[in-house]
Amino acid sequence: MEPHKINVFTQNPTRPLDVTTKSIGQLVDGMLYTGFQGRKLAESVQAWDNMLKEEKLTVMMGLTGAMVPAGMRKVIVHLIKNRMIDCLVSTGANLFHDCHEALGKKHYVGSHLANDEELFRHGVDRIYDVFAFEEEFRHTDHLIANFAKTLHGRRMSSREFIALLGKKICEEGNGDESIVGSAYKYGVPIFVPALGDSSIGIGLTIARREGFDVDVDQIKDVDEITRIVEASGKTGVVYVGGGVPKNFIQQTEVVASIMGADIAGHDYAIQYTTDVPHWGGLSGCTFDEAVSWGKIAAEAKKVQVFVDATIALPIVVHALHEKKLNDKRKFPLFIWKENGCLDIDFNTF
Amino acid sequence: MEPHKINVFTQNPTRPLDVTTKSIGQLVDGMLYTGFQGRKLAESVQAWDNMLKEEKLTVMMGLTGAMVPAGMRKVIVHLIKNRMIDCLVSTGANLFHDCHEALGKKHYVGSHLANDEELFRHGVDRIYDVFAFEEEFRHTDHLIANFAKTLHGRRMSSREFIALLGKKICEEGNGDESIVGSAYKYGVPIFVPALGDSSIGIGLTIARREGFDVDVDQIKDVDEITRIVEASGKTGVVYVGGGVPKNFIQQTEVVASIMGADIAGHDYAIQYTTDVPHWGGLSGCTFDEAVSWGKIAAEAKKVQVFVDATIALPIVVHALHEKKLNDKRKFPLFIWKENGCLDIDFNTF
Amino acid sequence: MEPHKINVFTQNPTRPLDVTTKSIGQLVDGMLYTGFQGRKLAESVQAWDNMLKEEKLTVMMGLTGAMVPAGMRKVIVHLIKNRMIDCLVSTGANLFHDCHEALGKKHYVGSHLANDEELFRHGVDRIYDVFAFEEEFRHTDHLIANFAKTLHGRRMSSREFIALLGKKICEEGNGDESIVGSAYKYGVPIFVPALGDSSIGIGLTIARREGFDVDVDQIKDVDEITRIVEASGKTGVVYVGGGVPKNFIQQTEVVASIMGADIAGHDYAIQYTTDVPHWGGLSGCTFDEAVSWGKIAAEAKKVQVFVDATIALPIVVHALHEKKLNDKRKFPLFIWKENGCLDIDFNTF
Amino acid sequence: MEPHKINVFTQNPTRPLDVTTKSIGQLVDGMLYTGFQGRKLAESVQAWDNMLKEEKLTVMMGLTGAMVPAGMRKVIVHLIKNRMIDCLVSTGANLFHDCHEALGKKHYVGSHLANDEELFRHGVDRIYDVFAFEEEFRHTDHLIANFAKTLHGRRMSSREFIALLGKKICEEGNGDESIVGSAYKYGVPIFVPALGDSSIGIGLTIARREGFDVDVDQIKDVDEITRIVEASGKTGVVYVGGGVPKNFIQQTEVVASIMGADIAGHDYAIQYTTDVPHWGGLSGCTFDEAVSWGKIAAEAKKVQVFVDATIALPIVVHALHEKKLNDKRKFPLFIWKENGCLDIDFNTF
Repeated sequence: MEPHKINVFTQNPTRPLDVTTKSIGQLVDGMLYTGFQGRKLAESVQAWDNMLKEEKLTVMMGLTGAMVPAGMRKVIVHLIKNRMIDCLVSTGANLFHDCHEALGKKHYVGSHLANDEELFRHGVDRIYDVFAFEEEFRHTDHLIANFAKTLHGRRMSSREFIALLGKKICEEGNGDESIVGSAYKYGVPIFVPALGDSSIGIGLTIARREGFDVDVDQIKDVDEITRIVEASGKTGVVYVGGGVPKNFIQQTEVVASIMGADIAGHDYAIQYTTDVPHWGGLSGCTFDEAVSWGKIAAEAKKVQVFVDATIALPIVVHALHEKKLNDKRKFPLFIWKENGCLDIDFNTF
Repeated sequence: MEPHKINVFTQNPTRPLDVTTKSIGQLVDGMLYTGFQGRKLAESVQAWDNMLKEEKLTVMMGLTGAMVPAGMRKVIVHLIKNRMIDCLVSTGANLFHDCHEALGKKHYVGSHLANDEELFRHGVDRIYDVFAFEEEFRHTDHLIANFAKTLHGRRMSSREFIALLGKKICEEGNGDESIVGSAYKYGVPIFVPALGDSSIGIGLTIARREGFDVDVDQIKDVDEITRIVEASGKTGVVYVGGGVPKNFIQQTEVVASIMGADIAGHDYAIQYTTDVPHWGGLSGCTFDEAVSWGKIAAEAKKVQVFVDATIALPIVVHALHEKKLNDKRKFPLFIWKENGCLDIDFNTF
Repeated sequence: MEPHKINVFTQNPTRPLDVTTKSIGQLVDGMLYTGFQGRKLAESVQAWDNMLKEEKLTVMMGLTGAMVPAGMRKVIVHLIKNRMIDCLVSTGANLFHDCHEALGKKHYVGSHLANDEELFRHGVDRIYDVFAFEEEFRHTDHLIANFAKTLHGRRMSSREFIALLGKKICEEGNGDESIVGSAYKYGVPIFVPALGDSSIGIGLTIARREGFDVDVDQIKDVDEITRIVEASGKTGVVYVGGGVPKNFIQQTEVVASIMGADIAGHDYAIQYTTDVPHWGGLSGCTFDEAVSWGKIAAEAKKVQVFVDATIALPIVVHALHEKKLNDKRKFPLFIWKENGCLDIDFNTF
Repeated sequence: MEPHKINVFTQNPTRPLDVTTKSIGQLVDGMLYTGFQGRKLAESVQAWDNMLKEEKLTVMMGLTGAMVPAGMRKVIVHLIKNRMIDCLVSTGANLFHDCHEALGKKHYVGSHLANDEELFRHGVDRIYDVFAFEEEFRHTDHLIANFAKTLHGRRMSSREFIALLGKKICEEGNGDESIVGSAYKYGVPIFVPALGDSSIGIGLTIARREGFDVDVDQIKDVDEITRIVEASGKTGVVYVGGGVPKNFIQQTEVVASIMGADIAGHDYAIQYTTDVPHWGGLSGCTFDEAVSWGKIAAEAKKVQVFVDATIALPIVVHALHEKKLNDKRKFPLFIWKENGCLDIDFNTF
């Protein structure tokens, strides 16, 4: 055979991964030269690492799936405390489960093969292979209802409500290991665009039926998160799953553009997902599709990794931890004004 | 070989499906004796058919995925007009796209292989293999903003807001082919638990930033849908996809139970989904898992079909149409009281 | 808003599917103007229909998954008898199960939630939600072993072996409803590239251990199927699942090209699959990827439908049946020569 | 709230994973107390670790997917050299790609978004996001053809053929980094049940058409691998993907049982898969389903992890490497007799 002319497609050989004693970060670096989702996982670490080196960039995370019952609570707390994320959009459920653990309750190692009728008879709720007590959940429901009652007559965004909840959790003394507590303490805003659709919403409904009214204003949520995008130089997004949190962050670019901002789509985009593009849903759609909408910049670094987040998050966040041990990052400090406006200062961490 | 003693597991042989000229209903009936998801699809038709024969049963549908862009709009309208569903919980997006088409705009047959940068330059948004004009979407955004301005100062549930929107669409003369229009006309309540997270929410945000305030009260949504469950004898659920609509309907049983109702879980449960149980999320979890929570009755008929809804809905609804041509069903008529309470009358259709 | 200039991307609006009394073929035709996998399913019918109108085209089907236990046996037989396929590449399992039913044994409607230890104690094997008797399977194993013993000392391709088995099944009087029987009768060659990996292989191993030797020559399989491609004007492929059958048919284009044929890839390509491209495997890879290899022609009609075959096959084959009731097709008649060569005559059906 | 009586389901709380500097093995150990697939991945390491501590246990691995192009070659070599597996059942493709790299050729880091028509014009084959030169592949095809010619007239199992190929690769000097080379050197038998269905099969077909005949006897494969099971005390299985290799190893228990062995199913079972149970196929079916068939012992440790192998293998094998640094394992030494029989000696490593 003739010696083969290397063409543009074949500049960069794969490097078979060899098995040696190495750190998590070294392992991930080695996976950059493999293929398929292993490489994508490594590329996501690289993209996140680069994102954190940017000037005036705000990192927004969308969080879905029962990540707290699945033991990912402190991983998210680590991201908040070390400002590897600056803003969190979550399902209500994850924050409910976070409060539940902050209040000293537990989730339990269970089995996905358990008999559900028997579990029901024992008052045990199943989340795939994690168990919890229904009675303890209801206890937390009522604590949230009681907390809500103290806010009777107020109208606020979910960000404001969750910040108050985080303050309360901190006052109870368990804040530092909690998502809502550490977010409150470290100034990371949390939005819950579908708060009613969760046990926090159940707590609020209990209060409502007893005549107490907290009005969580979902349109204020849209307004406020759009202000974050409008006031940030650049934005990077990290989606754990898809669902409402992904769409809610994606649509900020459209809202800001309609409002007249010169916005060209998020600048970095990472998603850990088990959904796929071909069902046509927003959860699984590619970031390329998002380019057509102007939600993601055409030139953005885009990494979609098809993997369960309970595998991805431990690896990725430990690798980032290793890479960022001595880094100082300029992160955004959000200053919310009385009139609803937002200023951002970028501080050195 | 000895003649084999038939045991309890082997009473019912599969019947190889033969290919003849037959109707859609006959095809589906034949699939009851096959295996895998083909059988499950047939079982879902059987379950839905049985559900509609029950006395004092309310059918609640959860709707996710871009079903309207994918051409499923009239299929949902058919379910509403023929009261094969009594209550709809939807993403905002599907209702936005429904209004968009009601206003004479189109979605277009596209390709999932299109170049998204080129689409962006042409102002074309891609939803997998469906296209639409961004400029036309923004036109509809502003029409919704203008409609919202007419409601300045009001606070209401998403059900009330969508009903007013449906009334408006009907007045414009295009209601009958529209989901929100026909739901208004036929008395089917529609809830949108994450209304902010959609282009309808964008319209509301435009109005908000211009100083007009419509307050869509998400906790009222939880309260109202719980009242439907509390006032119904039985409930059946049909989920197209999962997401917030599935969880929102599932949690009604928990809320009603906490509120003191003697509630034992939904009595029929059907889901068409492309998600799977093993990621641990609510979207893909089995109805068996839901039994542990008391969301689904242990003895309920439970059918989870793993299939794209754009395949399932056309087949299932045509089969139901064929089976129900001459049926009269007693469906619930919802009478919402001033004080927020709900009465249900079961009428013959 | 300004009237919008229609561009190249938006010539063809989607048409919401309305629900009326219609035939299966009409339903599928209507789905051509919807989106996502519903449209893809309709496109696959259109492509297959067009394929059958071509002159001098050979249709090759790859068949995986437990399609016979799942009740798809007569659907495949229909395709064979009506020459909607001309050549079948299958797992051994499907043909084993086909023989099993031809010999009067049954598969049973079961449940995917059964207790497997209890099934084991009752001698019942589970295939997801289909049951069968292990003892009956072993009876069929031994019948195949006995048949193999009659071929002691012979060496043949799997095509030749399966044809002899089909002849035997026909002689037993049950051939017409059987895949191997009808394929024998109607001259449709069947290849099983991994025959050892199935209960037919178990039967052959039983015979082997008792001193009888049938040598199923897998390299002769590669040679023979390549000759089909070499002697056909055009080829169309239909994959039910992926696995070895898909790769085995795909690689024929590469083999023929290496052997010097002027081959440019299959001309039509349809796949019904539940696998996805992003795991990097051949089963789920796109037909576009196959273009890079020269396995599929760049200009070929390519339709990949993400759906369980037990849903797709009933609908697609009934729709084809409806469309083809009065069609005459010129199908290939294979004349295998003593020297291993192949002539093809294209006959009118 | 009353202190809650701990019941049998809730003995073992989940432990939120905290992010600290830790080794890969420590990370995996921590994931044992989380949930979902993250926990399953950790359980698979624990199960594999335990398997290697058993006396007289043979570990059989099934390998599918384009693992070598994806950079997993040395990971498999590590498993062979350190006898973390004792027998390998593979697709032909992985061994072809292994030979390709052993012969100094490369795979390349590519993109899954490349234009496939353009790749075709440049002679570049795409495997999802990995590229290779078609011309170089054909070069390797011919080298295998030439090697096959040297075996003209011989009939052998795929195990024997691959061992001879491994010997040849070792003689060329590149054996130690190669799967077939190290397997030859370390006495790990490799079976390829569908050898024809791969580029190695293409090489054999080239030789065949030129008049050289190597007869790879697939029934001998079934016989030989069954002998491994018959001669082993216990067996553990590890499936990377599913496909033919999984079924081929699973069916050994059935064959051995039919042959009269007192066999009760494999004793450990691990699968890394992206397939799911509900399509009814063998690739994705649960190990519980396999219990009904007697392929897996009811009391076996069974772990099915839903994850791309290019993510799982690097983590799992590095964790095992860390745990096994100082372990001595008694591994099976296979002594193949002239008459086709097999003796196994269990040696200390």
